[in-house]
Amino acid sequence: MSKKLSADLDGLTPTPLDAVTKPVNWQLEQIVEQLRAARAEWRSSTGRARELGSRELPSRAAVENILEALCGALFPMRLGPSGLRQESEDFYVGHTLDNALNSLLEQARLELRYAARQRGEVEAGSDAVAVQIVRDFAAALPGLRRLLDSDVIAAFAGDPAARSVDEVLLCYPGILAVIHHRLAHHLYRAGLPLLARIAAEIAHSATGIDIHPGAQIGHSFFIDHGTGVVIGETAVIGNRVRIYQAVTLGAKRFTADETGQLHKGQARHPIVEDDVVIYAGATILGRITLGKGSTIGGNVWLTRSVPPGSNVTQATLQHQPGSPG
Amino acid sequence: MSKKLSADLDGLTPTPLDAVTKPVNWQLEQIVEQLRAARAEWRSSTGRARELGSRELPSRAAVENILEALCGALFPMRLGPSGLRQESEDFYVGHTLDNALNSLLEQARLELRYAARQRGEVEAGSDAVAVQIVRDFAAALPGLRRLLDSDVIAAFAGDPAARSVDEVLLCYPGILAVIHHRLAHHLYRAGLPLLARIAAEIAHSATGIDIHPGAQIGHSFFIDHGTGVVIGETAVIGNRVRIYQAVTLGAKRFTADETGQLHKGQARHPIVEDDVVIYAGATILGRITLGKGSTIGGNVWLTRSVPPGSNVTQATLQHQPGSPG
Amino acid sequence: MSKKLSADLDGLTPTPLDAVTKPVNWQLEQIVEQLRAARAEWRSSTGRARELGSRELPSRAAVENILEALCGALFPMRLGPSGLRQESEDFYVGHTLDNALNSLLEQARLELRYAARQRGEVEAGSDAVAVQIVRDFAAALPGLRRLLDSDVIAAFAGDPAARSVDEVLLCYPGILAVIHHRLAHHLYRAGLPLLARIAAEIAHSATGIDIHPGAQIGHSFFIDHGTGVVIGETAVIGNRVRIYQAVTLGAKRFTADETGQLHKGQARHPIVEDDVVIYAGATILGRITLGKGSTIGGNVWLTRSVPPGSNVTQATLQHQPGSPG
Amino acid sequence: MSKKLSADLDGLTPTPLDAVTKPVNWQLEQIVEQLRAARAEWRSSTGRARELGSRELPSRAAVENILEALCGALFPMRLGPSGLRQESEDFYVGHTLDNALNSLLEQARLELRYAARQRGEVEAGSDAVAVQIVRDFAAALPGLRRLLDSDVIAAFAGDPAARSVDEVLLCYPGILAVIHHRLAHHLYRAGLPLLARIAAEIAHSATGIDIHPGAQIGHSFFIDHGTGVVIGETAVIGNRVRIYQAVTLGAKRFTADETGQLHKGQARHPIVEDDVVIYAGATILGRITLGKGSTIGGNVWLTRSVPPGSNVTQATLQHQPGSPG
Amino acid sequence: MSKKLSADLDGLTPTPLDAVTKPVNWQLEQIVEQLRAARAEWRSSTGRARELGSRELPSRAAVENILEALCGALFPMRLGPSGLRQESEDFYVGHTLDNALNSLLEQARLELRYAARQRGEVEAGSDAVAVQIVRDFAAALPGLRRLLDSDVIAAFAGDPAARSVDEVLLCYPGILAVIHHRLAHHLYRAGLPLLARIAAEIAHSATGIDIHPGAQIGHSFFIDHGTGVVIGETAVIGNRVRIYQAVTLGAKRFTADETGQLHKGQARHPIVEDDVVIYAGATILGRITLGKGSTIGGNVWLTRSVPPGSNVTQATLQHQPGSPG
Amino acid sequence: MSKKLSADLDGLTPTPLDAVTKPVNWQLEQIVEQLRAARAEWRSSTGRARELGSRELPSRAAVENILEALCGALFPMRLGPSGLRQESEDFYVGHTLDNALNSLLEQARLELRYAARQRGEVEAGSDAVAVQIVRDFAAALPGLRRLLDSDVIAAFAGDPAARSVDEVLLCYPGILAVIHHRLAHHLYRAGLPLLARIAAEIAHSATGIDIHPGAQIGHSFFIDHGTGVVIGETAVIGNRVRIYQAVTLGAKRFTADETGQLHKGQARHPIVEDDVVIYAGATILGRITLGKGSTIGGNVWLTRSVPPGSNVTQATLQHQPGSPG
Repeated sequence: MSKKLSADLDGLTPTPLDAVTKPVNWQLEQIVEQLRAARAEWRSSTGRARELGSRELPSRAAVENILEALCGALFPMRLGPSGLRQESEDFYVGHTLDNALNSLLEQARLELRYAARQRGEVEAGSDAVAVQIVRDFAAALPGLRRLLDSDVIAAFAGDPAARSVDEVLLCYPGILAVIHHRLAHHLYRAGLPLLARIAAEIAHSATGIDIHPGAQIGHSFFIDHGTGVVIGETAVIGNRVRIYQAVTLGAKRFTADETGQLHKGQARHPIVEDDVVIYAGATILGRITLGKGSTIGGNVWLTRSVPPGSNVTQATLQHQPGSPG
Repeated sequence: MSKKLSADLDGLTPTPLDAVTKPVNWQLEQIVEQLRAARAEWRSSTGRARELGSRELPSRAAVENILEALCGALFPMRLGPSGLRQESEDFYVGHTLDNALNSLLEQARLELRYAARQRGEVEAGSDAVAVQIVRDFAAALPGLRRLLDSDVIAAFAGDPAARSVDEVLLCYPGILAVIHHRLAHHLYRAGLPLLARIAAEIAHSATGIDIHPGAQIGHSFFIDHGTGVVIGETAVIGNRVRIYQAVTLGAKRFTADETGQLHKGQARHPIVEDDVVIYAGATILGRITLGKGSTIGGNVWLTRSVPPGSNVTQATLQHQPGSPG
Repeated sequence: MSKKLSADLDGLTPTPLDAVTKPVNWQLEQIVEQLRAARAEWRSSTGRARELGSRELPSRAAVENILEALCGALFPMRLGPSGLRQESEDFYVGHTLDNALNSLLEQARLELRYAARQRGEVEAGSDAVAVQIVRDFAAALPGLRRLLDSDVIAAFAGDPAARSVDEVLLCYPGILAVIHHRLAHHLYRAGLPLLARIAAEIAHSATGIDIHPGAQIGHSFFIDHGTGVVIGETAVIGNRVRIYQAVTLGAKRFTADETGQLHKGQARHPIVEDDVVIYAGATILGRITLGKGSTIGGNVWLTRSVPPGSNVTQATLQHQPGSPG
Repeated sequence: MSKKLSADLDGLTPTPLDAVTKPVNWQLEQIVEQLRAARAEWRSSTGRARELGSRELPSRAAVENILEALCGALFPMRLGPSGLRQESEDFYVGHTLDNALNSLLEQARLELRYAARQRGEVEAGSDAVAVQIVRDFAAALPGLRRLLDSDVIAAFAGDPAARSVDEVLLCYPGILAVIHHRLAHHLYRAGLPLLARIAAEIAHSATGIDIHPGAQIGHSFFIDHGTGVVIGETAVIGNRVRIYQAVTLGAKRFTADETGQLHKGQARHPIVEDDVVIYAGATILGRITLGKGSTIGGNVWLTRSVPPGSNVTQATLQHQPGSPG
Repeated sequence: MSKKLSADLDGLTPTPLDAVTKPVNWQLEQIVEQLRAARAEWRSSTGRARELGSRELPSRAAVENILEALCGALFPMRLGPSGLRQESEDFYVGHTLDNALNSLLEQARLELRYAARQRGEVEAGSDAVAVQIVRDFAAALPGLRRLLDSDVIAAFAGDPAARSVDEVLLCYPGILAVIHHRLAHHLYRAGLPLLARIAAEIAHSATGIDIHPGAQIGHSFFIDHGTGVVIGETAVIGNRVRIYQAVTLGAKRFTADETGQLHKGQARHPIVEDDVVIYAGATILGRITLGKGSTIGGNVWLTRSVPPGSNVTQATLQHQPGSPG
Repeated sequence: MSKKLSADLDGLTPTPLDAVTKPVNWQLEQIVEQLRAARAEWRSSTGRARELGSRELPSRAAVENILEALCGALFPMRLGPSGLRQESEDFYVGHTLDNALNSLLEQARLELRYAARQRGEVEAGSDAVAVQIVRDFAAALPGLRRLLDSDVIAAFAGDPAARSVDEVLLCYPGILAVIHHRLAHHLYRAGLPLLARIAAEIAHSATGIDIHPGAQIGHSFFIDHGTGVVIGETAVIGNRVRIYQAVTLGAKRFTADETGQLHKGQARHPIVEDDVVIYAGATILGRITLGKGSTIGGNVWLTRSVPPGSNVTQATLQHQPGSPG
């Protein structure tokens, strides 16, 4: 070390750097031990002390990859890789589908085996069922693409700010949510409710639109803006329906005579008939029916059925005694 | 294989593993064929059977990278890479800008060529226009940084929970949305509405704040919490305006005499003058004006103009006959 | 294209390929210079012209990694890596914790040093404090896991659509938000409010649920759907509370006599006692108390306390003169 | 550019930008078709037309990951992740081993099934065998670590330029090759010659040292520099042997009476007894024995056995009539 | 901070940590300036001061990706992705080829434009030539696959240690080198010598086998072990040739009458006729011919032609006066 | 499950799938325990039982990143990122240097602290020394760039196959090795022999060229092909030297009177004066001098000095009695 260098260093005090750079001991052994105890407690309290934990669950990351691949396979030039050319569209679609379907098969096996264990059944038959479900799902994709095309056209027609169908597909969160929903709904009906729910929540996180995969939705469906939309498990929505941000199609839960334990699976969300429009912030609760062609105004709170062609606004409701104005 | 090993294996039955691990045939040829038919149908139905599909659209992933790079170039010590030091700040800024601008140029060319094809024009002139737009955009960045500094200060001043201007820039979703908006708005005005919309939707997805890139917003703008905010394409917002979560500055669409086909581009969203505050959940619809210095209360539903200095709350409105209280 | 722009383009030669493929000059030197000037202006205007910028702030990306690792360490079989097996659970937990805690230590040092500079103090003692905070945080994890187990059970019990506790943990955004909140709240109380806020905003971005890390929340807490929920810094929530999407527990800011400068840290958000249920869209403002076991209906606007066992709906409120119905 | 080529280009239009940016058609359909035909030809010519191609082979990338993980698990503080601390060494080792062993199990299954198909046998029993092989491999790791420690010490002792045992482990290609060899040799003997060979070639590519996994090598083995070393399948090397770059321990293939078809598996490479040193460039061919403690000089060409304690140099050999000097 | 904590910290001295953690100033401005001066000097000394540096060269990373993709497209089940199934083989091949060819087109344009600039020509025609070259290359792939199949069979036949043709393709460095060479040689002849050289060096780095892309090599070629093999630009190799590690087919450069300036492109490397075997370490120099069916022994040094059927060993040569024995 | 589906499944036997898919228990606890014991044994046998293992060593991956960055900073348009343009060259260089130097500082601190521990000294002063070393290294880069330019020109002049200086820089392994050597040699002399050695081995692995970082090499140095070259620690090479593949400049180790323990650091490798050429495979051993302008033929074995202007070939040597011909 040169003279000049050591001069430069004169001002530096020697030792205390170590005070911090010395590796800290976190008592990891003890914390790991306590976390294991916490897990053991949980498992014994939920009756799965023996072995359930040793089996794999479906993976959210895997489902994300599958859905992204399916989006590309369904709309290759617009949601596929950026350099894709028409000459190789089919190659891309075939290769991508192959990956997506095999990965979906793996996830489906995990869900079916998990479900069998939950029911206390043997898991053995699950794998063949998984194959059949994925095969049916694959066969349904062309039909789903046609359905989604109707949604894209509905979005373009329904928004004065939309410049092209391509912009709609590239940008609109409502379209993203509907693509995920239509795929998730197929899985839900095929017997994979957990994968379906994961797919729905991926869209929920990206868009703020929360559609339960059980909801039935007709063609040409359009959600504008979308943040805060909630559509419940047993909702039934007709064709050409349009809804805006913060609309809820929910269950009416707090009736006076409830026992505190709702029956699962019971129809408890609204039926929305064809050609209905529901503006932002409207809250529609319970198994009621919005008649064909009705318009529901912004921020309306609605808990009873309305006939076809109704035009419901806050002002309208205010004239009805006892209404939640 | 040792004696001991074969003993261990006695209990294993030999064949059925293959039942599942045999590769499944998905009938890919057929599905790919059907998907191609669905695309062909779509293309012919939208009048682009010949060749449009063979050209590239802008890429959302590319726009995400560009925006992240621009955030770093605008606020290097706070949104740039974690180890950045002041000595090399300019090197980082210059290198990052260079990457971001060249990538933006590529995306701009894609949008302009796409737009030319949509209009049935030749694409040839697009590239030189793209260069000019990006050059102007680059030159505007220092001014945009100053504008954003005013927003950061407004956020710090407007939220009692804010501890420092740095916390605001690192954490607040409203700031993230405003950075994206100011960049997107420049692109929108420069003739790149699709890139602008993609940029806006990236922020929408991350924050739940949905600002159309066409909206004009003055300096020192602050959105707190933000989830569910919607600001429409033709909204005009003055200086020092503050708004809270779930506020809508929207169009009033459902007038009795509408023809079902709104003119695109028409001014249809509110004008919010300087120093207005709008609390959470307020819905402001139509081309109305909120006068300078007004305060709009939470959950208020407002469809007509109010003079400067107004203080509008639900209670106030309830006394006005016919109001949507 | 504006007059000025087309003028600029006049000089372009006709062989257009080169026109574009020739590298464009963006005047980077000049823009970088101007951005530096803008930063200098900002720094001098906020009184940190000398050197503050040369120090590092905590990194959002680092906090994201830490939280993801902690989620895995807390719930290894459900939020850990997909192939994990029970035999190596503890190895995974220990290794992951070690990485997470060391990374947290680094971030904690950055925040404490930053805070010391903000206060004009020397940074020297910060590092030892950081070690102690992280050590305490590590020791608290087993307790936090037990608390979170109560939340998972509450979610399962509270949603008729939930099929299993595992589905809840894998899918429900409310659970994700609560995990982040409980970790962030510990950091907040330990003296790391900036890291805590970053953690909270990560969850906010993913779920649309905005819980300030200062909020105190009892066990068995459940948020359903969640988009648009806002819970303020000084809110206090009891045990077994259930809330739905778009509920606000906020501050009542626009009293007539305000001076425009609220005291920071003052208790200004609601107290929600045990066993309260708050339905979607309800807005609860100010330091009021919702008595034990009360039910607050959807879209209710509430700014005063209610006694235990209350059942508040829009209809109820409408009968009270002056209420914001 | 050939005549034919320039002819092809005559038709190109003069606006050159489009000439190139127009997507090129590569006649992919046709090329893919022809490649399929080439594969079909190959498969039929090698007698596997029916189905062999539809099954997976082991993956080189997977083996690379497994070996990197095993290096880390064997030498955690020196070949493991850079931030590892002693407190969490065992956690890291356990977690890493778990990943490596499960991944190895998958690769072992692929090789055993492949081998069964090659032999025309059913694949069914393969999986249980794979489990047993990997279990034995895992159990052998502590012993392998001790053996490798002897190699590290031999390298440190044998090279005057070595500064520390840690430098040896971090830097010396000979050590890298020996680690790979000892692991590969275990797999080779356990019945996984393909995985073993892949592992050996990974080291060969990184170091230029080509050790067949079948070679038997005693403890305290050291290869210096190493590029160009070749050690054959049936070579047997004693303890404390040291060799330098470009040494070959090969088979003597070109005897006058050969039939052109060597029997596979026959012992055909040298036996090197304890404490032998072989200097750079020496070529030792055939099933000869280098007696204990011998020294073989640089560039020597040796095809017959030498007694213990020999000192063979080029000069020595030149005096022996008929020698290949 | 609690009493207990501060007690723990008593022993820590406060300040000097900063001594090191203070960001160091590297005088970057000055070093960057000096590096710019060094580049300017270089550019002016090599006559390219004006603008050459502003254009892009081909990228080694891009060529690596292209070659890896082509390996997969040529041998999908063995060098393609690990999960590939026969049903989707063609989809994978088509999609991968498309990516590889478009990327190759980009690199070819860069080389041709670079070469035009080097020659002082305009770059304009380069792009159409690039298209034609890549189209021809694509059309040649099925033929190249058949040629490579002959090499795989030769390797399997030539090595007693080889267990299957698949092992050869997965493991043997000689095969990797030959695949790269056959692709590189096509590019070399098509007028892309720089891309060809990059491809050759990628294989050289991975295998230690250095084949100049100009070398002409017949079918059924096999290199065993391979490290240190060098084959020169104008070498001509017949069918069914087999060579071992460290063989050189080089130029004889140091003749007495050389002028120090060899003519580029002159034939200066050996011609190796059909069915020749060359054992390890042999050095063959100059434009000599090894007659059909000859065998060249290990470490032989050979600078004159040998007739067909020769069997050359060191011993043989030693009997010839003046030979380099 | 539909009738049709269950029919399809009839042939599947139910249970044994589990036999394999059941997670295997590897006895990890036990293996981890045994590996810990092996490490403890090693540490105690090498006298570092107490604590050495708890400190970090330099990281090969980090050094790889540093060297790649430095290559880019030294030759930005040719070894930097592919899209770099001249306008932003300095920004790229400055930003990249900053990252590389800070990362190098970290690695230098690790080596110096490690070395201090090895010597039994306190580590405290190491950090300031590291800063000074890296600062000097940074200041030396412009000079190193000029030196490397001389090497590039020498390679271009020395190889008849080279087409341009750019091809040389992009493709030639000899250039890559020399860049790494010149950087490593600076670190070696500055007191960081471990980092220097790691850098040298990175080049060795990529090129097969093994230059000890201690070797002193003049300007305009060229290695052609390069595989198998070995240059020892104390070698001294003049200006304008050219060497070919498989040349060794080594130590002559096996003298009759050796004690088995060579003194470390002693000058033991050749001195090669200016303008010497050494052809492929030559082996030069011991502290001998090759006089200025000499030519050493291929495969020559040389262990004594030769005067300036010598022309040494195998034939020449053979006439000298006792020579290793």
